[in-house]
Amino acid sequence: MVFNMNDAIEILERTPGTLEALLSGLSEGWVYSNEGEGTWNPSEVIGHLVDGEKYNWIPRLKIMLGETDDKRFPAFDRFSHLKDYNHLSIEEKLSEFSSLRKESIKKLKELIVDDKQFVLTGVHPEYGEVEARQLIATWAVHDLTHLSQITRVLAKRYTKEVGPWKSYLGILNK
Amino acid sequence: MVFNMNDAIEILERTPGTLEALLSGLSEGWVYSNEGEGTWNPSEVIGHLVDGEKYNWIPRLKIMLGETDDKRFPAFDRFSHLKDYNHLSIEEKLSEFSSLRKESIKKLKELIVDDKQFVLTGVHPEYGEVEARQLIATWAVHDLTHLSQITRVLAKRYTKEVGPWKSYLGILNK
Repeated sequence: MVFNMNDAIEILERTPGTLEALLSGLSEGWVYSNEGEGTWNPSEVIGHLVDGEKYNWIPRLKIMLGETDDKRFPAFDRFSHLKDYNHLSIEEKLSEFSSLRKESIKKLKELIVDDKQFVLTGVHPEYGEVEARQLIATWAVHDLTHLSQITRVLAKRYTKEVGPWKSYLGILNK
Repeated sequence: MVFNMNDAIEILERTPGTLEALLSGLSEGWVYSNEGEGTWNPSEVIGHLVDGEKYNWIPRLKIMLGETDDKRFPAFDRFSHLKDYNHLSIEEKLSEFSSLRKESIKKLKELIVDDKQFVLTGVHPEYGEVEARQLIATWAVHDLTHLSQITRVLAKRYTKEVGPWKSYLGILNK
């Protein structure tokens, strides 16, 4: 298939509402459940998504599309949200994510005015040269990855409760 | 943890809205995308969830909680939806699933009036004796499994598009 920005935006614009429908109002037993030490609970995953909007996607895209010569992405601390948003409820994080995402999509549409910009590049600290269209596709897939992670974390709370059905529920064996 | 019906209902009642937020209005390229021959696209997954409401969860629970002596579950055809709902749009399936789920939760609350009923049993064709609370927990996890499946199917559409980020996005390597 040929990358198409509207397709990617369809995913990006649905993520906040999907997460709100799944997580808003959910009781603490679910919201603060995780997969064991060093893993994130659903509330922490939303904090990570907030960070992505602030420090990752649009800032990196601006480097790719802008006129500066230095195309290296600055480092992105994947764990800063664990201390920075610790005081926020999941409802506050969901609301913050939703506002930031709206703003990000607005900026994305302002930044990309021509498909020719899709192949402009930046320098990823690990992968080297990457294209703008790859970053946008990754942004959408990153949303889906974390939505999948949240469903897995929630499901695992019932690992024992499902009894013999465990063997049939692949999500519990990951 | 001790199984608690309200916790399970929190998940069950959120699934239709979560699926609508993710899938409603999504373009055909996403809705009819799958993981290769013999796998389901997001629309087919919703058909399977509709079938579960009709033929699986509440009907089995009624057998467990009812007064009949024969506690064997009737067979459940996991593929009937592929022909039965082929003519329905995903919007129609989402709407049908949402109505059926509301009805199922109402019936669930009517059927279970005392926690003592949690340990009443039925006979699963493969697993043998299973408890009512295990069925209810499995119902919730089954929702989460299919939500996870849909996010994976959607994500895989961009397997090539993400370029070098593929190695970092676990969902694309499943």
